[in-house]
Amino acid sequence: MNHDLLITNATLLANPADGHLQMATYLAVKDGAIVGIGAMADLDAQPEADHIINAAGNLVMPGLINCHNHGAMTLFRGLADDLPLMTWLNEHIFPAEARLVDAEMVYWCSKLAAAEMILDGTTTVADAYFHEDAAAKAFCEAGLRAVVAQGIIDFPAPGVPDPKQNITAAANFLATWQGKNSLLTPALFCHSPYTCSPDTLQRAKGLAREAGNLFFIHLAETREEVAQLKEQHGCTPVGLLHKLGLLDAKTVCVHCVWLEEGDIGLLRESGAKVVTCPESNMKLGSGIAPLAELLAAGVEVGLGTDGCASNNDLDLFQEMGSCARLHKVAAHEPTRLPATTLLGIATEVGARILGLAGQIGRLAVGFRADCLIINTRQPHLTPFHNPETLVYAGRGSDVATVLIDGKVVMQDRQLLSFDLAETLDKVRCLAKRVKTTG
Amino acid sequence: MNHDLLITNATLLANPADGHLQMATYLAVKDGAIVGIGAMADLDAQPEADHIINAAGNLVMPGLINCHNHGAMTLFRGLADDLPLMTWLNEHIFPAEARLVDAEMVYWCSKLAAAEMILDGTTTVADAYFHEDAAAKAFCEAGLRAVVAQGIIDFPAPGVPDPKQNITAAANFLATWQGKNSLLTPALFCHSPYTCSPDTLQRAKGLAREAGNLFFIHLAETREEVAQLKEQHGCTPVGLLHKLGLLDAKTVCVHCVWLEEGDIGLLRESGAKVVTCPESNMKLGSGIAPLAELLAAGVEVGLGTDGCASNNDLDLFQEMGSCARLHKVAAHEPTRLPATTLLGIATEVGARILGLAGQIGRLAVGFRADCLIINTRQPHLTPFHNPETLVYAGRGSDVATVLIDGKVVMQDRQLLSFDLAETLDKVRCLAKRVKTTG
Repeated sequence: MNHDLLITNATLLANPADGHLQMATYLAVKDGAIVGIGAMADLDAQPEADHIINAAGNLVMPGLINCHNHGAMTLFRGLADDLPLMTWLNEHIFPAEARLVDAEMVYWCSKLAAAEMILDGTTTVADAYFHEDAAAKAFCEAGLRAVVAQGIIDFPAPGVPDPKQNITAAANFLATWQGKNSLLTPALFCHSPYTCSPDTLQRAKGLAREAGNLFFIHLAETREEVAQLKEQHGCTPVGLLHKLGLLDAKTVCVHCVWLEEGDIGLLRESGAKVVTCPESNMKLGSGIAPLAELLAAGVEVGLGTDGCASNNDLDLFQEMGSCARLHKVAAHEPTRLPATTLLGIATEVGARILGLAGQIGRLAVGFRADCLIINTRQPHLTPFHNPETLVYAGRGSDVATVLIDGKVVMQDRQLLSFDLAETLDKVRCLAKRVKTTG
Repeated sequence: MNHDLLITNATLLANPADGHLQMATYLAVKDGAIVGIGAMADLDAQPEADHIINAAGNLVMPGLINCHNHGAMTLFRGLADDLPLMTWLNEHIFPAEARLVDAEMVYWCSKLAAAEMILDGTTTVADAYFHEDAAAKAFCEAGLRAVVAQGIIDFPAPGVPDPKQNITAAANFLATWQGKNSLLTPALFCHSPYTCSPDTLQRAKGLAREAGNLFFIHLAETREEVAQLKEQHGCTPVGLLHKLGLLDAKTVCVHCVWLEEGDIGLLRESGAKVVTCPESNMKLGSGIAPLAELLAAGVEVGLGTDGCASNNDLDLFQEMGSCARLHKVAAHEPTRLPATTLLGIATEVGARILGLAGQIGRLAVGFRADCLIINTRQPHLTPFHNPETLVYAGRGSDVATVLIDGKVVMQDRQLLSFDLAETLDKVRCLAKRVKTTG
């Protein structure tokens, strides 16, 4: 059999959650899928393949899955750090967004996000922002697998100046991108239950349900949000979604920092998903999500970086480490959130949450070939006793080569899928406009 | 004037705590010291220098200062993650140490630590372990600036099988290394007040005081330690050191997670220093040090990685980010521990704690030339609105080139001061011996 691509001599971490390493392994790819995995000893002496990558001394694992990002917000990276939440949002982020966010900005800044993610080992992202047509275009050109969710909010928004049109715009977005590109799935993103009315939430979820798409929402991120919703609706954010009939297996609740009694039960019973963004929650001082309790209840929890305005990077390796360490110290319990749990969350669990189970998230025959070749022969990864080291000492820059859907999009730290220099230049020009009004 | 080395076209962060960037700057080095800093416009058209590094598009800042590490413990990186503290210590770390720690192990594993630190932008380390003669030799060969503290404990220890000899061994260590190498200062390290008797603590501090050297000690790391000392001595760990007359400006208390009323006052009044190791305290579930309170009281606090068994890497860029984020979320207050505070802690404050104020920690004429050239033209650092980005998005691998004492020890990510491949091989061989008994 002639393969499109063959990775040889790999140390394979096929299913990150089990932490098991297979030494001296090959992985064969054809038409974007994994068609063979086995011991080097069982490979033909002169295997036929258009492209052979010798991964000797390197670790090969599934690409990481970022379940929540606002890619275009790379432009606001470090714009206004260390400020009170409302000052940051009202005096910096919202005004900068109102002034600068258009389709061109979203295109270039999402492309920068795609470059950063690919270079740091993320092969699939769930993105949520406005002008998502432009983000979708950027991700497609980057060769990044993406679930792209058009933002919905009951205020004038970039690309949707009249909030009355927000559902129509969302419907158009779904219609445009449904089935258009095999790497891309459209979805919807309601900003939050305090910026979208119950009617908007229900219409948006109805639209997503009808089209079979995911529905994302920021939920229970801060104590203030919970207090506000209780006053307005007499229930918690999760309770409100339940009351409105919005919780099901295709609803993805992002943050869930402040859950109260009953909330976890509602999430579990409905099959709704949770995405945690620990570094963003830490930097904004929002709080610590009850991850151990969610996992113990059987709720599926994915990992997201959130946008660059509050993280400030998109490195899921560091995000795994931060997540594990945060929950250990919060509970005064070093056994909390073991590294292998995080490795599973950032791969196979992420795939399930994004509706891509069985396609990505582990390396097995029949799965799409989304994988990373990691250089473990560096001082900070030596010795490499076990895969936990990826979580506690690994970082995105350890990823040497990235395949998405069988295509080599980055090799030896060089992005291959598009012209990075052009994107960096474009974003730097846009950044000058951010700075001009401070 | 003929310079040894000239860095041109730099964006200079001369004093990280003030966050001020000077554009288009040169930095001139002679005999290991900074002899000139100024605008490129003021530089001769054809400056004389043996070596010119064009830093166009890059940021130049002082090298980072790691105030607490056990370098040789790189061997135990990832050996036993996610375990209860006492299982980790008693069933894995202590047995591995008893079996494997000898002068050769300390030499090679400290050398690996030196490589990792240099590659990640650390130019000065305070190291504390056993067989520190071997660590000192490794750091000297690596060209790393170091305060090297010989370990003291009232148990049989590597190199000091008879605890009765621990003070004699410490005295010999100080005598051997005092004034021997301009980059190296000897010091002493008592493991803790629960593993060293009051008599040992007093004799060790007396020896350090007499020789004018620093005295390091692990202090108030866990709640259990505080409870144990209160039972034995009727006072807190800090209180015990005060009662024994050990607190002064050359005593460095590492961790200080569990401080009680009065402890901060004792630290402030005595001028004793504190070093915080947030990632280690997080991973071991130890707790969160009261940094804001210490800083508000005027206690000097440095930053350390701790050893690789509990971190698991030596990247101070990530340590700054973790520290800032942890204290924000713990206080639910995003203004806590601003990034510039961390940048100051990891440079100039560290220099003061290690007795090197005025020599290192900022870039100014007369200071030693310990500096980093950082590649900020990467996707995850774009746009680069301000130096805070180094804390929230930077990582050790962004450091392109490192000077220590005017010498280029790493350039374009290649370690120049010693043979890295040999060290990696040696440590991998040692690591096989770790694994053989699991």
